[in-house]
Amino acid sequence: MMKIIVWFSVLMMVFFGYSCTSGKGDGIRYIFFLIGDGMGNGQVTGTQFYRAELDGRIGLDSLSFTGFPVVNMMSTYSAFNAITCSAAAGTALATGTRTSNGTIGKDAIHSKDVYSIAVKAKEKGLSVGITTSVSIDHATPAVFYAHQSSRSMYYEIAMDAVKTGFDLYAGSGFLQTRSMTDSTAPDVYRSFEDAGYTIARGYDDFNRKREKATKMVFVQETGASPFSLPYAIDRKPGDLTLSEITRGAIDYLFQKSNKGFFLMVEGGKIDWACHSNDGATMVNEVMDFSDAVEVVLEFYHQHPDETLVVVTADHETGGVGLGTRGYDLNLKLLSYQQNSLDVLSERLVSLREKRGGKVRWEEVKTVLSEELGFWNEIEITKEEEDVLKSEFECSYLQAGAALRGLYAVVEPLAKQAVQLLNNKAGMGWTTPEHTGTRVPVYAIGAGAWRFDGSPLNNTDIPRIIAESAGWD
Amino acid sequence: MMKIIVWFSVLMMVFFGYSCTSGKGDGIRYIFFLIGDGMGNGQVTGTQFYRAELDGRIGLDSLSFTGFPVVNMMSTYSAFNAITCSAAAGTALATGTRTSNGTIGKDAIHSKDVYSIAVKAKEKGLSVGITTSVSIDHATPAVFYAHQSSRSMYYEIAMDAVKTGFDLYAGSGFLQTRSMTDSTAPDVYRSFEDAGYTIARGYDDFNRKREKATKMVFVQETGASPFSLPYAIDRKPGDLTLSEITRGAIDYLFQKSNKGFFLMVEGGKIDWACHSNDGATMVNEVMDFSDAVEVVLEFYHQHPDETLVVVTADHETGGVGLGTRGYDLNLKLLSYQQNSLDVLSERLVSLREKRGGKVRWEEVKTVLSEELGFWNEIEITKEEEDVLKSEFECSYLQAGAALRGLYAVVEPLAKQAVQLLNNKAGMGWTTPEHTGTRVPVYAIGAGAWRFDGSPLNNTDIPRIIAESAGWD
Repeated sequence: MMKIIVWFSVLMMVFFGYSCTSGKGDGIRYIFFLIGDGMGNGQVTGTQFYRAELDGRIGLDSLSFTGFPVVNMMSTYSAFNAITCSAAAGTALATGTRTSNGTIGKDAIHSKDVYSIAVKAKEKGLSVGITTSVSIDHATPAVFYAHQSSRSMYYEIAMDAVKTGFDLYAGSGFLQTRSMTDSTAPDVYRSFEDAGYTIARGYDDFNRKREKATKMVFVQETGASPFSLPYAIDRKPGDLTLSEITRGAIDYLFQKSNKGFFLMVEGGKIDWACHSNDGATMVNEVMDFSDAVEVVLEFYHQHPDETLVVVTADHETGGVGLGTRGYDLNLKLLSYQQNSLDVLSERLVSLREKRGGKVRWEEVKTVLSEELGFWNEIEITKEEEDVLKSEFECSYLQAGAALRGLYAVVEPLAKQAVQLLNNKAGMGWTTPEHTGTRVPVYAIGAGAWRFDGSPLNNTDIPRIIAESAGWD
Repeated sequence: MMKIIVWFSVLMMVFFGYSCTSGKGDGIRYIFFLIGDGMGNGQVTGTQFYRAELDGRIGLDSLSFTGFPVVNMMSTYSAFNAITCSAAAGTALATGTRTSNGTIGKDAIHSKDVYSIAVKAKEKGLSVGITTSVSIDHATPAVFYAHQSSRSMYYEIAMDAVKTGFDLYAGSGFLQTRSMTDSTAPDVYRSFEDAGYTIARGYDDFNRKREKATKMVFVQETGASPFSLPYAIDRKPGDLTLSEITRGAIDYLFQKSNKGFFLMVEGGKIDWACHSNDGATMVNEVMDFSDAVEVVLEFYHQHPDETLVVVTADHETGGVGLGTRGYDLNLKLLSYQQNSLDVLSERLVSLREKRGGKVRWEEVKTVLSEELGFWNEIEITKEEEDVLKSEFECSYLQAGAALRGLYAVVEPLAKQAVQLLNNKAGMGWTTPEHTGTRVPVYAIGAGAWRFDGSPLNNTDIPRIIAESAGWD
C-alpha cells in the first residue's frame, strides 16, 4: 500500500510540478548558493565539537546549516585529477562541466567556454550577485562569470566580470587591476565604471550608494589588502565581514529585482586556514561562514516558499582528522590561539628583525605564550618544549627560513607551534593541499528535496538548481 | 501548488502508512543491518578511487552500497567521549542509548541493561542472526545480545549470547570459552549445545547441518584463529569469508522464519586495518564488506517490497585523508602490497629469528620488494631508502622492538615501510585510534526513505528501523 501511495505522490508531483505550473519547477524566486571553500565533513563536525566543548559538553553544537532538512554527500574530483583545485571544482559546481585543474569556465577537452547557472539565472531575468571573502577574481567566484584557461589570469578574469555584467560583485578587491601584458589596456575599476557600475568601498559606502546604483562592485575600504578579508580570528573593529557582504547583497538584489535573484556567497578562507593546517583559524572561519548562512536564513524565513538555499563545499582541504591519539578531543585548546598562523609568523619575523637575530628563547616563549596560551593555559611538556627550542635554534635564529605557503609566508617555528597545538587538541592533518574525499551538501527551502537521494557529483548541482527553478 | 501536493502526499502517507496498515510501518519482513566497523567517508571514497585507478581512470567506482537511493551522515560520539569506542558506538546503534566507552548494552548513568533492536525483532516473532568477521563476543556483535560493563568480559558476553538465545551467531569464534574467574563455570560451546544450539565449523559443515538445526553457532573450522577471519588481503583458499557467513545466514534464517528475520552483519576488520594505518589492507576489507552487502542485495532484489537494508559504520578509524601532498592520488600503488602489515611484520620477525639477528639490509630489501613492490614496481628514492635503512639499523637489528598494536604485534620497520607506501599513494592518517567525524549511512528498500533528512545521530538508527517495521 505504502508503495502505491509513494508512487501516486510522485506522479502527482510530476504532474502538478511540471505540467500545471508550466515548467516553473518549485516556484523559486530566490536562489542562494553558499560555498565553504575547503569545508569537508571534518571541518563541519570539528567546528560543531569545538563549540560544544566551549559550552562544557561533549557533542555537536548546531551551525546554521547543519540542521537543514536535506543532507547529501558529493564527489569533487576533476577531469584529470582525483584531487581537484578550486578552479575545476568551481567550474563543476557552477556549470556542470568537469574540467582540468586550473581552468575557469571552460571544458577540459576543447577548452570551449561553458556557462554557469548564474548566467542562466541572468538570462531568466533574475538579478545576480557573486560574493566572496577573498578577491572577486579568485577561482570560486570567477567560475560563475569568467572563461580563462588559467585561474591566475586575474586581470582577464576581472575583465570577464565587466563583460558578463552581473548586478553585483563583492569581495576583498581585485588582485590585478592592470594588465600584466598590455600597458595600454584599461584599468579594472575604470572598466567597471565605464560599464555603468558603482564602486563601493566598505559597508557604509555600499549602503549609501546602493539605492541609486544600477550595478555595483563592493570591496573593502581603501587601504585594505585586496587579497582577502581578514581571517575572522584576526578581525579588528571596522573590518568588512562576509556577513555584511551577504546582508548588503541581499538588500541590494531584493531592492532591484522584479523576478527574483541568484546569490553566490563564498567563505573563501576556510580553505586558506586548512592549507596552513591551522585548526583554530579554520573553526573560526567555519563559524564565520555559518554566520553568513544565518543572514541568508533570515531572508529565507521571510520567503520560505520562494527560496532555495544550498550550502556545500568545492572540496576538502588539509585532510582534517578529528583525532590524533586516544579517545578524547580537546578542541577547546584551540580557543587559546589569539590570531592566525600568518599573524604569529609575522610577529616572530618582526621580533627577529627588530632584535637583529639576537632573540633569546625566553622572548619567543613569551610570544608563544601570548599567542597560543602555551605554558600558561596549556601545559607544555619538557619534550615538547625541546622540539620547539630545537626549531628555534636550527631555523629561527638562522633567519630567512620562512616558507612560502600557498597564501602566506610561514615561519617554520610558528608552523611547528601551531602544529603542536593542533596535535594536543586532537585535530590532525594529512596534507597542506586539498583531498579527494566527498564533501557534504545541505539544502533547505523550495526544491531542497531534489538534493536528496544517492550521493551526488559536483556536476549535478547546477542541473538540480535549474530543474528546481524550472529552467530548461 | 507544489507545497499543497507535498503536504497532501505526506498526509496520505501518514494516513495509509500508519492507520490503514494498523501499525505495520512499511510492511517490512526482512531487516538487514550492516556495519562496516571504522568505515568513514574517507574509507568508502578511498576504496572507490582505488578501484577506478585499477581500471585506469580517475573517479569513483561503485561499491555495492554507494548507489543506494538514500544517503545521510551520522554522528558517533559517546556519552563522555567525543571519540567513541566500538562498544559505546554499537550500544547506540543497537539500542538507541548513548553510553560510556567500553560498555556493552547498558546505559551510562545507572548501568541499567538496555535492549537492542534485535531483541525487539525476536519479540515480534522474527528470526535473528548476529554475524561478524571477527569473534562473536567482540564489541559490535555483543551489543545486540549482551549486557556487560566492560567489552573485555568475553566469557560473560558469550554466556549472554546463550541466554538471549538468538537463532544464529556467526563469526570467527569466541575469545574466551572458559571463565577467567570460576574454573567450575561451564564451557561456552557446551553451554550453547545444552541450550539446543548446533555448532557448525566451516561453511560446508554449516550447510550440512543447517536444515536440521533449530539454533546455530557458526564459526571457522577447527584450528583457525578465534580472533577473526583472515584479512581479505591475506586470505587463502578455503578460508571462511564474510560473504559466505552472510549467504549462510540468509539461507538459514529464510528457511526457518515464518514472520521474517533480522540480520546484523559486521565487517569488523576495516577497523583493524585502519588501527594499523594500513591502506592496502583497508581497501581490501572495504571491498570484502561490499561483497557481503552484494549477497544481501541478491536477496533484496527477490523481496524488494519487504526488505530494508541499512549500511553504516560505528565510527571512523585512523582519520584517513585522501591526499598527502599535491593534487594527485596514486592509490594503485597499494595494489603492490601482497599481504597485511601483520603478515609483513611476522615475516620480518621470522627472518630475524632465523638468522639470529645477523640479517643483512639486502635481505630485508628482498622482503620489502616482494611484499610491497618497493624498488621493482615502486620507485624508492635514496632518501626514502635511507629512512628505512636507519630504522633497520636502529630498531630492527636490536630486535625486541616490536610494538604491540591494538590487534597485532607490529615490527616498527614494517610499520614504517607501509607508512611510506601509504604516503606515496596519497593516503594519509592522523591517528592509530578512532576519530569523532560523522560517518555515512546508506539505505535501500521498504522504509529506506525514513533515513533521509537532516544529519542523524547513531541513536536514531534503531528507532527508525522500529518505526519502519511498525513496532512500538
